[in-house]
Amino acid sequence: VEETATNSKATHLTYSTRSTFAANALGAKLFDLMQRKKTNLCVAADVTSKVDVIRIADTVGPFICCLKTHCDIVADWDAGAGQELRALAAKHDFIIFEDRKFADIGNTVVNQCSHGLYKIADWADFVSAHSLPGPGVIEGLQKSAKDSQHLGGLVLLAQMSSKGNLIDQKYVENTLAMAQAHRDVVFGFISQQKLASEPQDGFIYMTPGVKLEQGTDALGQQYNTPESAIGKKGSDVIIVGRGIIKAKNMAEAAKQYQARGWAAYEARVRA
Amino acid sequence: VEETATNSKATHLTYSTRSTFAANALGAKLFDLMQRKKTNLCVAADVTSKVDVIRIADTVGPFICCLKTHCDIVADWDAGAGQELRALAAKHDFIIFEDRKFADIGNTVVNQCSHGLYKIADWADFVSAHSLPGPGVIEGLQKSAKDSQHLGGLVLLAQMSSKGNLIDQKYVENTLAMAQAHRDVVFGFISQQKLASEPQDGFIYMTPGVKLEQGTDALGQQYNTPESAIGKKGSDVIIVGRGIIKAKNMAEAAKQYQARGWAAYEARVRA
Repeated sequence: VEETATNSKATHLTYSTRSTFAANALGAKLFDLMQRKKTNLCVAADVTSKVDVIRIADTVGPFICCLKTHCDIVADWDAGAGQELRALAAKHDFIIFEDRKFADIGNTVVNQCSHGLYKIADWADFVSAHSLPGPGVIEGLQKSAKDSQHLGGLVLLAQMSSKGNLIDQKYVENTLAMAQAHRDVVFGFISQQKLASEPQDGFIYMTPGVKLEQGTDALGQQYNTPESAIGKKGSDVIIVGRGIIKAKNMAEAAKQYQARGWAAYEARVRA
Repeated sequence: VEETATNSKATHLTYSTRSTFAANALGAKLFDLMQRKKTNLCVAADVTSKVDVIRIADTVGPFICCLKTHCDIVADWDAGAGQELRALAAKHDFIIFEDRKFADIGNTVVNQCSHGLYKIADWADFVSAHSLPGPGVIEGLQKSAKDSQHLGGLVLLAQMSSKGNLIDQKYVENTLAMAQAHRDVVFGFISQQKLASEPQDGFIYMTPGVKLEQGTDALGQQYNTPESAIGKKGSDVIIVGRGIIKAKNMAEAAKQYQARGWAAYEARVRA
């Protein structure tokens, strides 16, 4: 896996070109949005109150391609929160990524995505899932998407950045194969790097745990820089949480990450 | 892995004896409860309304050791639901298992377990987690348990029954090692069979997807019988969902599963 990114010519292709390879409409839309808005920044709004999620979305909105949510940590979430996020997504031109990491059998996942108190399928553009349970998890989410006005696809967790995680080379390959077999609904990956090696790679790679400097937190999360994620490892989107939402000036921090991520992308396609 | 169960002498030990090997108090309590109440049946209350969860809990309560919930599929869940379940658990002598399958980094998992709309740590006795993200997920839940009045431990997903799942032998071994390194909080596994081979095995094995006959559902779930799970494979708890909650007479069905599961256990310890 280590060398995939540098071996593949697809890292030199623009987001616009990659958009034409995407088999899922939302994946194509995200590539186009990134190119148009000149941002590969996704902000993780990991906060526990609705007012904070909304405030973050409205503040960083102009600088991001996606807003990543964990609705299930928000104590006062309600249907209005989803509607407000959708209005802000329209206002600032970003899409909404609920990082639920679905990891159950298909039958349960349909209910978790469409029902319950959060009704994720009612407001999220896409969600994340672990490939661990097998293709049933994808088929469950596809069912949820079919009945939803907004939900347009999903990304699979192909790698994790947490210390001691159990993902090995074979797991990555199996995940990639599972995505390729479901390209109509799986449009990308949460990963540390680009994974597919074919020249016409239409998958989007999103890398979490990005900060301006490298390091580790108290619970095993390991950080990457925008340059290593986008430049060296061929990923497409940097996901930034604490580096932005804990910043004194959130908008300035988002602007800075946007610039660093975009410069890394431009240097990569020029190389 | 296939032969572990039959190779190990611990399958002949009673739940009471195994209880003395448990390093976690809730694990010991569950073993004792099973022996006292003569049941190794866990019912999965996979329904989408609060009134149905409560009705199932009250109806099957007399026959079960655990009630397994998916609170996040319940559309009208509130703090009262958790309190009612706790009252029923006290009334019927069972413990509450929220099968959340936590699968994120530690920092996020703490919030998902303790906060959000479901506040799982406020009412569940134990939860499930995937070992996939590494030990951070366990340490996160340990933090949630420390601040909780009820949450006393967790079980790790060591195997899955869904078709095409990505768990291989190495994953199982890594999960087992992770549990052994955190025996104070991890007291068992969701698995298809008994896994640890040491004679003094204090872990509890819980097997989902159990029905009176074998088969598969439309979204890839594969079923086991009580005799294969408890008898042949050395598991300790059978988890039954649709076989009971979709039955015309839920109490009768629960009673039947309880009898089948308990007979399989008695035959095993006699063998």
